[in-house]
Amino acid sequence: MKPQILKGTRDFLPEQIFKREHIFNVIKTVFKTFGFLPIETPVMEHLSTLTGKYGEEGDKLLFKLLNNGDFLAKADQTALDQKDSKAIIPSISKRGLRYDLTVPFARFVVMHQNDISFPFKRYQIQPVWRADRPQKGRYQEFYQCDVDVVGSSSLLYEAELLQIYDEVFKALGIKATIRVNNRKILQGIAEDAGISDRWMEMTIAIDKLDKIGKDGVQNELLNKGFSSESVSKIFSSIEVKTLDSLELKSEIGQLGITELNKTYEFLGDHNFHNTVIFDPTLARGLGYYTGFIVEVLADDVKMGSIGGGGRYDDLTASFGMKDMSGVGISFGAERIYDVMEELDLFPKNTNLATQLILLSFDDESLMHANQLGSKFRRANITTEVYPSAAKMKKQMKYANDRKIPFVIVVGSNEIESQQYGLKNMDSGDSSTLSLDQIIEKLS
Amino acid sequence: MKPQILKGTRDFLPEQIFKREHIFNVIKTVFKTFGFLPIETPVMEHLSTLTGKYGEEGDKLLFKLLNNGDFLAKADQTALDQKDSKAIIPSISKRGLRYDLTVPFARFVVMHQNDISFPFKRYQIQPVWRADRPQKGRYQEFYQCDVDVVGSSSLLYEAELLQIYDEVFKALGIKATIRVNNRKILQGIAEDAGISDRWMEMTIAIDKLDKIGKDGVQNELLNKGFSSESVSKIFSSIEVKTLDSLELKSEIGQLGITELNKTYEFLGDHNFHNTVIFDPTLARGLGYYTGFIVEVLADDVKMGSIGGGGRYDDLTASFGMKDMSGVGISFGAERIYDVMEELDLFPKNTNLATQLILLSFDDESLMHANQLGSKFRRANITTEVYPSAAKMKKQMKYANDRKIPFVIVVGSNEIESQQYGLKNMDSGDSSTLSLDQIIEKLS
Repeated sequence: MKPQILKGTRDFLPEQIFKREHIFNVIKTVFKTFGFLPIETPVMEHLSTLTGKYGEEGDKLLFKLLNNGDFLAKADQTALDQKDSKAIIPSISKRGLRYDLTVPFARFVVMHQNDISFPFKRYQIQPVWRADRPQKGRYQEFYQCDVDVVGSSSLLYEAELLQIYDEVFKALGIKATIRVNNRKILQGIAEDAGISDRWMEMTIAIDKLDKIGKDGVQNELLNKGFSSESVSKIFSSIEVKTLDSLELKSEIGQLGITELNKTYEFLGDHNFHNTVIFDPTLARGLGYYTGFIVEVLADDVKMGSIGGGGRYDDLTASFGMKDMSGVGISFGAERIYDVMEELDLFPKNTNLATQLILLSFDDESLMHANQLGSKFRRANITTEVYPSAAKMKKQMKYANDRKIPFVIVVGSNEIESQQYGLKNMDSGDSSTLSLDQIIEKLS
Repeated sequence: MKPQILKGTRDFLPEQIFKREHIFNVIKTVFKTFGFLPIETPVMEHLSTLTGKYGEEGDKLLFKLLNNGDFLAKADQTALDQKDSKAIIPSISKRGLRYDLTVPFARFVVMHQNDISFPFKRYQIQPVWRADRPQKGRYQEFYQCDVDVVGSSSLLYEAELLQIYDEVFKALGIKATIRVNNRKILQGIAEDAGISDRWMEMTIAIDKLDKIGKDGVQNELLNKGFSSESVSKIFSSIEVKTLDSLELKSEIGQLGITELNKTYEFLGDHNFHNTVIFDPTLARGLGYYTGFIVEVLADDVKMGSIGGGGRYDDLTASFGMKDMSGVGISFGAERIYDVMEELDLFPKNTNLATQLILLSFDDESLMHANQLGSKFRRANITTEVYPSAAKMKKQMKYANDRKIPFVIVVGSNEIESQQYGLKNMDSGDSSTLSLDQIIEKLS
């Protein structure tokens, strides 16, 4: 049987893990300095928890688990007779794989409301699954990395999340542009253009500016039946360059401007490493956002957004808990990895790789080498012992392939003299040293 | 809709995550000092990769994913007509959830044989899924933590793995007994008792000693038709107290003794924190082990084994790659957690919790507090800012609930004087200090 891996899934080799851990560690460290706490939820959720939360398209992309045992015995007979794949699902599958981290988080908040303090600041870094068609850069199993605070409508948290983006990308060495907007401003623009009841349509069209350009969006709006006055009004608003130069008559629009200004006020003279810009064309698609929205692009690589988020009003409403305003952002870990790879930003010596390997000429020296290995490890030197007194060429090949920087060959002379030749594999230099001297040198 | 979590699955709250991370970090640190490297494999595997690897019972316990789209259209019609749940599976499900880490590891080794160096030393800490009936301490979704080396038959690795067990349990503060044996010794015992072709039956019976006692095992063996001479011969062998006092005529048995002695020789005068004992009654159930076997029990808590493993001869044979001997052990992370909880072994101050919170009297002080917060964070002090100038009682309650040790209340006096009252929530003491003094104190 030829071994195969499922399309859309990946194995991670050690070097990839070290790089991914580097990203996650930087992110977690920043989250923690702001007092965000980690939670984890199960991979499997009740299908009823997930269904209906991501639109019809989302429901199709949910991975569903077949009930165990004799599931056909309990299958919906009508659906079976009609071979109706959709209708039969509830009767043969009660579990699904997590599709994002937001819905499980909402379930978590409601279930654990008595165990946690509000505002609840949490982060969560776990894989999610979507039955999308796999293609380059798009996987069926991939990591999401979310940080949210629920139970407060304070705009302080918008400021915190902007600072978090800034600190993370600074620490990773990425230069990024952080675009911010407020959904209420988009509503206000629509209201001033006389199309307030169709503001979501306007938003969806504006969201395509990057893809189809100004002409494309104008045409789409006109085709939808918006008047040319409305369209030109919209563009005169979204083409302003600064928040100060945006003037709206609409009350909700003014509230959006006030909110964004207050967020800036919280930031005070915070010295950003990255660029933060107000962008009234930022729309964030169909999301459930109700206020602040944000999206991040890397400056030096052409790539989709490497982060995004915003404020939502009713995270937990579908689980019966009202008035839980929240705000959150996510990091596109897979894309951040690609950006860092392309810009060569990963730290060189992948941390914690083996520093030293002990090779040996015969069985007796192998025994000695193993006991020597323990001593080096106790001094926190990451040490391997080649497991047999094989041909020296073979042992050296392993050391080379594994890119281990220091080698000691143990033979009867070394055992007798307690002096060991430490070879630096990079420079080729070799020096004869005692155990303590080697420990000092490698520490 | 009332939120629910699936039976056999768990949410992890922040404190639990910190504790779990403590265990995993200790384990990983030890693995790395021996040069073991991390890999990860996907949660979803081809069902054909998993099926048939865990026996008939295992196949039933595999979680299977329903194919997406119109799966009934492609369903096996005969199976559908006969409502044969088992027969229909291959036609409606091509994916399964990982059942353990060993089979995916074998697939990984074969697929990546040209990207890795042998002997390949890897560790893997990831969840697995089994459709077992959930009960106390038994989950459908739980973590496994495996460390293996493949591509070498050197007994050096048996010694390394014993040292790893010892180092990990020492670092966690657990006192444990590490029982070792060799399957070849069990084969030899059977051969000397004249029942060499039925040695697995003998092994399975011996494996029940802890449960049903000596009488129970003797009866089981007699009931299986073994002669009373055979049974008494078996017991005279497995009741020896040391490896030196075990005498076997069988050649394979002698090889087992030699192997175990060589492993001891590799350990030399290694000073074990835990107890390592030879236990000829250790059998490790039905596993695929062929040589060295090991099992770990905590000394101070009644609980099943907290670790186990052994040597296997043909990890990758089912994927067409021959002669890959390997040896590995696993850590029962869930049970280790319970042992540590019961013995109160977790470090007290769950690391990286919030150190300082800033409260404020009014909007202006809140703005100031947020900017102050940034300065503390830059000095690596984990800092939260309460997000609104709510009633002081409410703000204090949050600080208390979150067990944050230090509090500063910001008001107009503090803004003017740049001196802040730092309150220690444990002692109740308060002192008025400058920003720099506070940073010095909390660092």
